[in-house]
This record gives sequence, C-alpha cells and structure tokens, in this order.
Amino acid sequence: MRIDLNADLGESFGRWHLGDDEALLQVVTSANIACGFHAGDPATLVRTCAAAAERGVRIGAQVGYRDLAGFGRRFIDVSAEDLYADVLYQIGALDGIARSVGSRVSYVKPHGALYNTVVHHEEQAAAVVRAVAAAGGLPILGLPGSAVLTAASAAGIRAVPEAFADRAYTAEGTLMPRTSPGAVLTDPSAIAKRAVRMALEHEVTAIDGSLVSTSAESICVHGDSPDAVAMATAVRDALVDAGLDLVPFIDHG
Amino acid sequence: MRIDLNADLGESFGRWHLGDDEALLQVVTSANIACGFHAGDPATLVRTCAAAAERGVRIGAQVGYRDLAGFGRRFIDVSAEDLYADVLYQIGALDGIARSVGSRVSYVKPHGALYNTVVHHEEQAAAVVRAVAAAGGLPILGLPGSAVLTAASAAGIRAVPEAFADRAYTAEGTLMPRTSPGAVLTDPSAIAKRAVRMALEHEVTAIDGSLVSTSAESICVHGDSPDAVAMATAVRDALVDAGLDLVPFIDHG
Amino acid sequence: MRIDLNADLGESFGRWHLGDDEALLQVVTSANIACGFHAGDPATLVRTCAAAAERGVRIGAQVGYRDLAGFGRRFIDVSAEDLYADVLYQIGALDGIARSVGSRVSYVKPHGALYNTVVHHEEQAAAVVRAVAAAGGLPILGLPGSAVLTAASAAGIRAVPEAFADRAYTAEGTLMPRTSPGAVLTDPSAIAKRAVRMALEHEVTAIDGSLVSTSAESICVHGDSPDAVAMATAVRDALVDAGLDLVPFIDHG
Amino acid sequence: MRIDLNADLGESFGRWHLGDDEALLQVVTSANIACGFHAGDPATLVRTCAAAAERGVRIGAQVGYRDLAGFGRRFIDVSAEDLYADVLYQIGALDGIARSVGSRVSYVKPHGALYNTVVHHEEQAAAVVRAVAAAGGLPILGLPGSAVLTAASAAGIRAVPEAFADRAYTAEGTLMPRTSPGAVLTDPSAIAKRAVRMALEHEVTAIDGSLVSTSAESICVHGDSPDAVAMATAVRDALVDAGLDLVPFIDHG
Repeated sequence: MRIDLNADLGESFGRWHLGDDEALLQVVTSANIACGFHAGDPATLVRTCAAAAERGVRIGAQVGYRDLAGFGRRFIDVSAEDLYADVLYQIGALDGIARSVGSRVSYVKPHGALYNTVVHHEEQAAAVVRAVAAAGGLPILGLPGSAVLTAASAAGIRAVPEAFADRAYTAEGTLMPRTSPGAVLTDPSAIAKRAVRMALEHEVTAIDGSLVSTSAESICVHGDSPDAVAMATAVRDALVDAGLDLVPFIDHG
Repeated sequence: MRIDLNADLGESFGRWHLGDDEALLQVVTSANIACGFHAGDPATLVRTCAAAAERGVRIGAQVGYRDLAGFGRRFIDVSAEDLYADVLYQIGALDGIARSVGSRVSYVKPHGALYNTVVHHEEQAAAVVRAVAAAGGLPILGLPGSAVLTAASAAGIRAVPEAFADRAYTAEGTLMPRTSPGAVLTDPSAIAKRAVRMALEHEVTAIDGSLVSTSAESICVHGDSPDAVAMATAVRDALVDAGLDLVPFIDHG
Repeated sequence: MRIDLNADLGESFGRWHLGDDEALLQVVTSANIACGFHAGDPATLVRTCAAAAERGVRIGAQVGYRDLAGFGRRFIDVSAEDLYADVLYQIGALDGIARSVGSRVSYVKPHGALYNTVVHHEEQAAAVVRAVAAAGGLPILGLPGSAVLTAASAAGIRAVPEAFADRAYTAEGTLMPRTSPGAVLTDPSAIAKRAVRMALEHEVTAIDGSLVSTSAESICVHGDSPDAVAMATAVRDALVDAGLDLVPFIDHG
Repeated sequence: MRIDLNADLGESFGRWHLGDDEALLQVVTSANIACGFHAGDPATLVRTCAAAAERGVRIGAQVGYRDLAGFGRRFIDVSAEDLYADVLYQIGALDGIARSVGSRVSYVKPHGALYNTVVHHEEQAAAVVRAVAAAGGLPILGLPGSAVLTAASAAGIRAVPEAFADRAYTAEGTLMPRTSPGAVLTDPSAIAKRAVRMALEHEVTAIDGSLVSTSAESICVHGDSPDAVAMATAVRDALVDAGLDLVPFIDHG
C-alpha cells in the first residue's frame, strides 16, 4: 500500500520568511511549490526546488491568483483568458527553475482561493485545466468531486484526489469552512490517526458523526502553522507504522 | 548574405497597450518578447507568442528588472543570486507559453537598464549568463564588446552582437546616451541606409565622423515609437532591396 | 440650474499612457483621479493634480481594488478590514499630492469592479463608507440607489448620485452590463441630448422604452475611449447651450 | 537631558509577519512606520498607527523605494521626478491613516537603500527634501553629515541626526557596511552602554579605537532581529537608569 504526503512550500517572499521548508522536505513526498503570484520570489523557488530535488521530493506547481497582498486567499473574478495565461505562466516559470536543478514540475495544485473556487466554478476550473493541458497535461491534485478534477478527467488529464488530515469534513465530503468552530484539528495524534484511516480504509468520520468515503492518493498536511513540522512528522510516522509506503503519487503508476 | 531584424514586443500590460505587435511581426525575424517583470502580462504573452509562432518569427526572452513602474529602465542594484533567479524565472515563464503555441524561446536579450548594465557590470553580467546557462544555454543577443557577451562566450554560450540602425554611435562603438542631442535618429531613409551599410559593410559612421566597425548578426529596430512600424518597414525594405536575406539569426548556423 | 461633469483621469502608469488628461481637464468640472492601486503612478498623480488645480477642476479620489494587472475591473473578495485600510490609504496618498499643489481631495468615487460591487455588496459598501468617514467624511459619488450611497447617507456623509450619458439603462434604473448589445452609446449628439435631458428633466429612456427618473448632480463621461474628448466636449457644449451652469457638485451647496 | 529612541515598525505585509510591533511600541518613543512601497500593507499600517497613537509614540513615515521583493534594500536609480512623487505619495498615505486614529505623521525617515543613498546622492537627497517640503516641511531623521540632512537644513527643514547603538562606526563617523566583520554588535549590555555614552557624552569609539563625536537627538534600535525587543529594552533601561528622559525628539523643541 502506497500513499503520498503533500504540503505547501516555497511561500516566503523576499525578506519575509514563512514555513520551515527544509524540515518539511524531510517529511513529505510531494512539495506544492508557490510560483510567485501569491508567494514565492524566484530566489526562494530556486532554493526550494534544489532542496526538493536533492531529497527526491516531487515538485508540484502551486498556482494561485496574482495577489501577493492577499496571499492568494481572496477570490478574484479573473476572466478565463487571463486565468489560463496566468496558470501557464506560473507553471512555466517554476518548471524552468525545476529543470535547472535537474528536476521537473510533475503536477499542478491550485492554491488558496483558486483551490476553493475551482471546486465549483466551472469556467475557472476549465481555464485551469486548459492551461495544464497546454503545459503538457500534468496531473492535477485537488478535492475529490471538484469541478477541476472532473474537467481534468474529461480532458484526459490524471485527476488526483487528496484528503486533509487536519480538517473537519461535512457529511457531503466537503471541508468545513475554516471559520466554523472545529474546522481545523490541532491534536497531532488524532490527526495522525485520521491520516492512517484515510490511507488504509479510505474513510473519515464527518463532523456530524456520519461516515464519509475518501479515495485519496495523497494526504495534505499544512506547512505554515507554528507546529507544522511536528504535525507532519506525526502523520508520516503513523503512516509508516501502519505499514504504508510513502511514495510520491506521481510514481504510484 | 543573411541578416536578422529584431524588435521588442509584448510590452503591453493589462489595460495598457504599447506598440503594434501585429504589424511589427510582419517585419522582423526575431521578437524580443517581454516576460512580465518590466512589461507583458501573461495574456499578452500568449497572444504575442501565438502570433510570432504563426509567422515563423523567432521568440527571444526579453528579460528585465522587476520594475513595472519603471518599465525596467532604472538600474536596480540586485544581488547576483536574485538576478540569477529572476532571469531563470522569466525565461521559464515565457518558454512555457512559447511551447504551448508550438514554439520555444530561442534566445535571450536583456531589456532596458539591465541591457545597459550588463555592458559593463561584471557581476550582473555573470548572473545573467549563469541563468541562461541553467536554462539550457540559449544564445544571448547584446552589444558587441559588452561584458555579458564576453562572459557568454567564455561559458560556451553563443554571443550574438547586434547593431542599432536608429541610434548614434560614439567613436568607441558604444551608443550615445538617449539624453544627448542627436542620439536617436528619426529619418526613416537615413536609418534604412545605415542598416544596409551595417549589414553589408559592417561599419557605421560615428557621431564625430569617424568610422566604427560593427559585426552585427542582427539589427535592432524600436517598437514603441509612434512611427515604429513605418521605420522598421523602411529598414526591412532597404535590406531586401540590397539583396540581403532576412533570416532569424538563430538559423544562420 | 447647475450640473457637474465628471470623468476618470490619472490612469496612466509609468511608461503606459492612457487618456488625454490635459484635454479632458478643459471639459470636466470634477476629476476622478486614480490613486495607484488599479492605475496611476505617483508622478502621474502629481501632474494630473497640478493640472486639475490650475484649472479649478475638483479632485476626487478614484479608489479601486489593488489590481494593476486587471485595472481594478475584476471583483476581489477582499475582507472589510483590508478594504477599509486600502481605501483610507488611497485617499490619503492622493490628498497628500493634492495638498502639495494647493488643492485637496474633495470627494471619493469607487472605480471599476469596486464601483459595481458596492452597488449591492453591503459589507464592501460599509467598508468604503467607514474609510471615507475616517478620512473626514468626504462626499461619495455613486449610482443612485446603490448600497454605498445608502450607507453614506446613514453615516451622515453626502451621497451624490450621478448619471451616465453614454450608457443604456434598464427599466429598474441600473446600467446595462457592458457586454450586452447596445449597452454603450457611441453617437456624440445622441449622448449629448441624453445628458441635457438628465440634467434638466431628471429622466432618461430605458432600453425597453420605459421612462426612468435620474436625480443626478453629476454626469459621468468616459475618459479612455478613442474619442473620449470629442464626446465629452459635445456633452459639455450641449449642457451649456441648454442654459446649464457647469459647476463642480462639491460647490452646489 | 532628553533622548529619543526610534525603531522600524509596520513592516509586515499581508500573510507575512515581521517584527513584534506591540512589544517595541512599549519601548520606543518614535516609530518609523513603513508606507507600503517596501513593506507595510494598509491594514498593517492601520493597526500599527493605532497602537502607536494609543501609547503616545510618535509616528514617522519610513519612506522607501518601490521594491517589495527587495524590501527596499536595493538601490534603484529612480529619477528625481519619480522619487519626489513616490515620497510624497507615501507620506500622504501614512498621514491619512495616522489622522484616522487621532495622530499625524510627525517626521520622515528614509528606509534601507534609500537611507544609504541619500547620505551621498545629491539628486535623490534633494528629491526627498523637496517632497518633504511639499508635504508641509516635517523634520527628517538621518545620518549626521548626510546629504539629505544638509539639504533639509538648507531648505529650512529640521534635520535630526541619529546614532546607531548596535552598529560599528568608522573613524570618519560613518557606519561600517553590514557585510564587514564586526559591523553589527549583538551583546545587549555593550549596546546599552554605547547608547548611554552616545546620549550623555555625544561620542562613540570607532572600530579602529579612535573617538568619534555623535550629536544624536535620537538613537535607533533595530526591530527585525530575533532578539530585537530584548535589545531595545536593554537600551531603554540603561538610558533611564542613567537619568535620561525618554521623549520623542519631535517634542524636544
């Protein structure tokens, strides 16, 4: 049994540091690296890609809205034409850097508000998929059942569902909004247990107690909370203890 | 006898339009396309690359300082590490777009203040060359005798000298600063004659009347003046009338 | 009978020029000057404010979303806290420049997508009004019946309704979306006639032929179309011919 | 005997936090608050100005180059016209926010590369002074003997010299470049002693052992190092223990 562990990296910008990329790269198997539009100056991307390549961690393009001030967390009603071009530009920029350190961009994961938007916004989801197709048809990592994964599959692009070990689920299998009480779990051992159950039994208990099935090829851990590394390590250790092989989803075959 | 004609394109940004890219693409053989740091939003780059690819015009990455407000025309004392990453990022971004329309970035030309700086600034010149090498070793288009071309040759990268048909030269073969009287020529027929002489006889008369040798493989025409298209067309027509073949320098072999 | 004529100015950015500010300042009585977030670099603002002050044209802060690439024309789901601060910042920046040329910011007009959003988005409308109140309670120029004007009145801030001479109206008194056929009028004499009727009779014929009442204190003419100056001049001349006094709304008293 | 203590604040940007503004505001008497060009999003500025106003800490405009990616630490060869407008814009923006919380911008301090540049660059120093004059002639805080303070005095603007408790001085009274060994002091008690000597005896021992006279009205402590608060507190306590009154320089009058 194989499982992938992904986290957001490369989210510093110039003088401003965010997250402990070095430590997280010891834990995850896939790194969603920012591409400069919502975070990630080029020198940060060079360093992060080099460190990921060195450790055999797969590089994904964490594409976002053009919004440094909002960290890509605010919906922008960008046209399909602009979004298509913005995504293509970001993937190319990161891929150029990844190639320079002997790696490649292996997949794409939308970030923040774009991630949430392409769960339901057909036009933006289609624009993202068209851009990914134009960039060579890389796999897209996203929420199971999201518009972007549906559009990816329809376009012949590999759609990779992920699960969130530290987020509460609704009975419908969507994530509770961050603003709801109990939406974000903080107990490392509870989170680690959920991750194992997601990976082995493909299910999770929703916030109302009902059972939700999750067919995730990857489990997302968050990189920018104060104890992100401890939590990610707890998840990894629990998965390994449960007999799972931590392998980048791109290599699951 | 073959000669290349290059101009800056893709310099619009969002609502702001600059230059008549469509018309210039009928005239030039190499298009220096902005990469988003000093000009060129992604949707503009997609359109410009598509139009260039359609006409068989070669695409060059017109890399610049990160300075939209200054259009890349202000020297920035950026560190070698940051400049290296900025150039790599820009080349990758444009190449991703160029590939999506069936073309590639074929060469690199620094823009504006960066162009002028790497004539003499060894550290920034070296950073640009390292980035170009990391991006696969594309040819660099620049001023004959500039630090960047010298460093390129030393690194095994093709250094392509260019000449400026509409700019006055000093006796030393450098360009008169734009702010000097007579620095920019405006008479299309005089400019066209200079271009022919540069291409055929590899020489130009400097501002003091002395003779300067120019071994240019490409002649640069400017794209953002009001009568840029008329002037570029006059240059092209004169070159063709003089029996020269207009061929992208990248294909001169 | 007095009427005000307003237009958007100061929308150039660095190398990119937009609109003929000098010419429009001969025509309008109130200038909505961009504040740097969607357009308008500081040097442009200095020049535009100086020219406005010289001609006795009133300066308004044309506040927008932080979105140069989108020219402020894309809705951004910015939080009330951030929007409040963004608006306050923009008003202060322009007011500092206006003071330096012996004038002041006399009113506020939201721009582009923010203008359209605060017609109905209660939270963003309230944030704009709170910022304007914090900046001293300047009048707000907007669409009659909009949430932002309602909130302004409730906060004791002067709410100034405007009408659009070159835009088609629905039977409900809202503007036809730009993308609808017939939404933007282009015949200068028809536009001028509408303006006079708006100013004198406070009414306009909607796109379905019904009569809509418009109680505008100001008429907006657009500044960035190719024949903006001709159209604005036609409107002004018609208003003067009809016996109206062109006076900034801020001085209507 | 009175002395002022100043530090840089408001240097966060969106998701990226920098410095412990709350803690530093308990220590300093003058806060150099970023204005958005090199750091400081508007919501951060609102919070920082409100906290400063609440504690009676004076607000200074920490104006910088337009360079978020470089944190204003890279020289930009900006024209006098643009720099004038950029400085005026930044002061106005911060002043608008300061007024909204019942305070005002009381002085101006250039940041980073601009601070270092206006020590010797006559044209940029003059542009800064012209902007400050146009903004009402606020005091300028800077290095003793710098071009900007000289130009300020000549323009009738109060020039306020400051000293750096944690930086090594050359025999000429300039600061050792950060890159030189020993340029930045880190021992809190040694730094505190230097501060007291600067405030009481107006002198400091240079790196070569010679004596340098310092006529500072303010002592600068740095806000963004890991133990910034501890160091600033040590300096403050030592100054108080030495019998000095900590009073904003603006009120030394």
